[in-house]
Amino acid sequence: MNFLEERIQKDGIVKEENVLKVDSFLNHQMDISLFRQIGEEFKRRFADVPINKILTIEASGIGIACIVAEYFDVPVVFAKKSKSINIEGEMYVAEIESFTHKCKNQVIVSRKFLNPEDHVLIIDDFLANGCALQGLISIIGQAGATVEGIGIVIEKGFQSGGRIIRNLGYHLESLAIIEDMNADTGKIVFREQ
Amino acid sequence: MNFLEERIQKDGIVKEENVLKVDSFLNHQMDISLFRQIGEEFKRRFADVPINKILTIEASGIGIACIVAEYFDVPVVFAKKSKSINIEGEMYVAEIESFTHKCKNQVIVSRKFLNPEDHVLIIDDFLANGCALQGLISIIGQAGATVEGIGIVIEKGFQSGGRIIRNLGYHLESLAIIEDMNADTGKIVFREQ
Repeated sequence: MNFLEERIQKDGIVKEENVLKVDSFLNHQMDISLFRQIGEEFKRRFADVPINKILTIEASGIGIACIVAEYFDVPVVFAKKSKSINIEGEMYVAEIESFTHKCKNQVIVSRKFLNPEDHVLIIDDFLANGCALQGLISIIGQAGATVEGIGIVIEKGFQSGGRIIRNLGYHLESLAIIEDMNADTGKIVFREQ
Repeated sequence: MNFLEERIQKDGIVKEENVLKVDSFLNHQMDISLFRQIGEEFKRRFADVPINKILTIEASGIGIACIVAEYFDVPVVFAKKSKSINIEGEMYVAEIESFTHKCKNQVIVSRKFLNPEDHVLIIDDFLANGCALQGLISIIGQAGATVEGIGIVIEKGFQSGGRIIRNLGYHLESLAIIEDMNADTGKIVFREQ
C-alpha cells in the first residue's frame, strides 16, 4: 500500500451507499503534510509533461490543487459552482450533475484564465461517476486548451468515471483506486497499481 | 507599498459599488508564489502566537489557508456553506449574510475538528462588513476553542468589519487595507500600516 492507501485504511470511514468519509484529512479538515506527499507523487507521475496551469473545482479540490501547484510552479484556476443564469459571455460554462447533493450545477471559468496556449493538469479529490471531471474537460475544450493530465486523489474504481476517462485516452493518475468497500465490516480493497 | 499592495495596484480592477476584482491572482486564478509571500508575512506577524489549527471558509479562503498553513505546520479546517437544515447535532452552525450574493448561508464545521484545546488562526481573503468572519468566530466560540489571531489578505477599510473586530479586542492583521477606491479613475488608496 502507498502512503495514501495506508492513510485511507487508517482514517477513512466507510458508510452506506458507497460513501467514503475522509473528512478528517482530505476534504473538511486538511492534512497539509499529506497534501505535500500528494504533490510530490503527482510531480513524479507527470514528471515529463509540459504543464503551465492547474485546473480544479471548488471547494474540496482547491486546497490540494494549491499544494500540488507548488511542485509544478504554476498557477491554479478553480471552476466555480454557479446557479446564476446571466453569465454575460465572459465565462466558459459546463453543466454537471451532483449525485451526492442530488442537483445540477453550472460550473464556470472566466475566459480570461484559460486559452489555447494552456497545457492543463486537472486536479480533484474524488472521481466516482466522473460528472465533475467531464465538466472540467469540456471547459478546457471550450478554451481550445490542452488536457495534459488528470490527477485524482481517490478514485472509486467500482464506478464508471475512471474507465470512461481512460477509454477516452486521457492520462489519468489516481493515487488510490478503491475496488470495493464494505460499510458493515469497514473493509476497503484497493486496486493493485 | 508592500508586495501585496503593489500587486493590487497593478492587477486589481475597481468596479462600481465598491467591488474590487482580484480574480486574476487571488480568488479565481490563484498565484501560488504570491500566496507563499502571504504565508511568510502572516508567519512574521503571528510569529510568537501559539497556533495549532487554521480555520477558513469555502471557497476562496481555502487555497490561501493551505499555503499559509505550511508556514505554521498546522492542519486547515474549512467551514462549509450549507443550506441544508438537518445538521444532526454533529456540526457547529453559524448563519452568515452574503451581501455579494444577496442571501443568507449557514456555515458549518464538524464538531470533530474543533475543540477547547484548539488555538485557531482564522484566514480569509477579504474582510468588508465582517459577516463571514463573525460566523467563524462564533463557531470557534461554540467549540470552546481560542481565536489566537485573524489574518486577512485584503480589508475594505471603508467598511465597518475590521473596526468592529478590532474593537472586540481580536488580533486582526490585514496585509492590505483599502481606504478608498474609485471606479471612474481606478485609483486605490491604501491605509498606512
